[in-house]
Amino acid sequence: MTESQRQPVPAAKPDLSGLAVPFEDIEAAAERLRGEAVLTPVLRHPLLDEVTGATVLIKPENLQRSGSFKFRGAFNCISRIPEAARFRGVVACSSGNHAQGVAASAQLLGMPATIVMPADAPKIKLERTRGYGARVVTYDRETEDRDGIAARICAESGATFVHPYNDPAVIAGQGTVGLELARQAADLGLHLDDVLGCTGGGGLSSGIALALSALSPGTVFHTCEPALFDDYKRSLEAGRPLANAAKSGSICDALLSESPGEIGFSILSRLAGEGATVTDEEALAAVAFAFTELKLVVEPGGAAALAALLSAKLPLKGRTVGVVLTGGNIDPQMLMTALDH
Amino acid sequence: MTESQRQPVPAAKPDLSGLAVPFEDIEAAAERLRGEAVLTPVLRHPLLDEVTGATVLIKPENLQRSGSFKFRGAFNCISRIPEAARFRGVVACSSGNHAQGVAASAQLLGMPATIVMPADAPKIKLERTRGYGARVVTYDRETEDRDGIAARICAESGATFVHPYNDPAVIAGQGTVGLELARQAADLGLHLDDVLGCTGGGGLSSGIALALSALSPGTVFHTCEPALFDDYKRSLEAGRPLANAAKSGSICDALLSESPGEIGFSILSRLAGEGATVTDEEALAAVAFAFTELKLVVEPGGAAALAALLSAKLPLKGRTVGVVLTGGNIDPQMLMTALDH
Repeated sequence: MTESQRQPVPAAKPDLSGLAVPFEDIEAAAERLRGEAVLTPVLRHPLLDEVTGATVLIKPENLQRSGSFKFRGAFNCISRIPEAARFRGVVACSSGNHAQGVAASAQLLGMPATIVMPADAPKIKLERTRGYGARVVTYDRETEDRDGIAARICAESGATFVHPYNDPAVIAGQGTVGLELARQAADLGLHLDDVLGCTGGGGLSSGIALALSALSPGTVFHTCEPALFDDYKRSLEAGRPLANAAKSGSICDALLSESPGEIGFSILSRLAGEGATVTDEEALAAVAFAFTELKLVVEPGGAAALAALLSAKLPLKGRTVGVVLTGGNIDPQMLMTALDH
Repeated sequence: MTESQRQPVPAAKPDLSGLAVPFEDIEAAAERLRGEAVLTPVLRHPLLDEVTGATVLIKPENLQRSGSFKFRGAFNCISRIPEAARFRGVVACSSGNHAQGVAASAQLLGMPATIVMPADAPKIKLERTRGYGARVVTYDRETEDRDGIAARICAESGATFVHPYNDPAVIAGQGTVGLELARQAADLGLHLDDVLGCTGGGGLSSGIALALSALSPGTVFHTCEPALFDDYKRSLEAGRPLANAAKSGSICDALLSESPGEIGFSILSRLAGEGATVTDEEALAAVAFAFTELKLVVEPGGAAALAALLSAKLPLKGRTVGVVLTGGNIDPQMLMTALDH
């Protein structure tokens, strides 16, 4: 290798023009969330660096209000509903984390909330959603159309529908995770080579990728998905949105999307690097590692990015890697399953 | 109230002269621990503020290397053993957290370690101590003398004994928890009115109280103990060290000291405020709260301070309160017991 080849290549300035969510919206969301959302820390753990050979920064959104990052997008979206429309409330569809994020936000803003949830959602998520004062309507994941149910409720009540990911205000809210992470890494004097996020519909992932593009150019964002729900990985490789065949069948209940969100895909197809997939076994092993070694409570879907790291699904040795733990709403029985593995 | 009465009274500058551990030793320990110990963050959680009526700052030492604060004191102490004596190794007595702190420190420094542990210590603590490469010798808590066993091993091997709390170097290491907490609170623009720590022999508690006296005058430190092991509370009230009648019988295995440490008592009798005690039930409820709401894995003894806060054992409403979670090495069965409560 000659001397000139060793010169670091300046990262290409990414072209952020024409993206559905301008970076300024993420900054505005951060202002709106100040004092409402938890500014989650960045955690380091020597053992994690040892077993992965990487310098790992954990962004623990399981420590967020409502137990997942979903509060950020929900609050950012709902707090922008005009005063005059608030009494009609909000409606959302969710397996449980968006449910809690919306319910907690609505409660803070004094608004009624109705959440359409699959009947097989984790018990803790159903209970906690009701705990935030929301009305819960359940449906059968295999046979019923949750969007139809939600649309009917909205039509009858005049409530505002809060999409779990395909909404610029939701994406801007989730993007504050990336904004904080980029700044926290810089405060530690570190440059993130890679960031791994758990990916369902892609609201969080596209928000993080956007924030990193603006604040940490050169950082590669990777989607991490359950093996049967790898719509983003396949879609990004194909260059067009592809759906999943399965509708259920993974313990990563938070990540069971049907296909990439339209806005999320438009962003990630320009900004994301290689995607990773993890099996249920790998997700459970990551849940157990988080419990036993990191002393953090993480749910299977919230551990997908950690699982991808621990299972060496991407070549990350020697790199500085951000890993987002997205949620911690796990039933005790599921945790025991993970620990018995 | 007249205007003059409203003037804030400047906190009396505490007299730190003659204390067994000068504050400079804590600063030196912080230097020694840099890059070895985790600089644990300060965590906020809206729900915790809501249910307590206080502004709560959590210092999560369960996220520390080896799963508890004990690594700090052990590493600070062991790293000061002269090079020539290191090959003879170290010996410690511990129910499990000091064991892991010593074993992890010795492993990092390339030294052999022998740990004398009660046979009824939590399985996870026995396993993890061996996992750090230490030799574990078990004894019966009711009938055998652990100090005698340790003294014999030291005499035979020439190894250095590392006391769990009654050692100025150990206290200085644990004091870095208080040093960090005081600075982190200041960074948040907050002044700590009170800090609650879990108290066994008093190494951590005296170290924290010392650091607060130097960096955050006016902050009141409170010892938090299991009801049957309230030697510090009673000793501080009596003005002389008093022993506990019980030797076992609390699930807070990390806090089952016989009596206050000599150095710890000499410090805390000058610097500590009112102490609190918690029942096993209250400790279990705090473990469950940490798991379910804070998404943190905490062991019963590590949750004593949180339990004192949640059970309103001290008048803390309206105050800014630091709570140290001291350890997270809990057996899954014990966690299930807490969650079933």
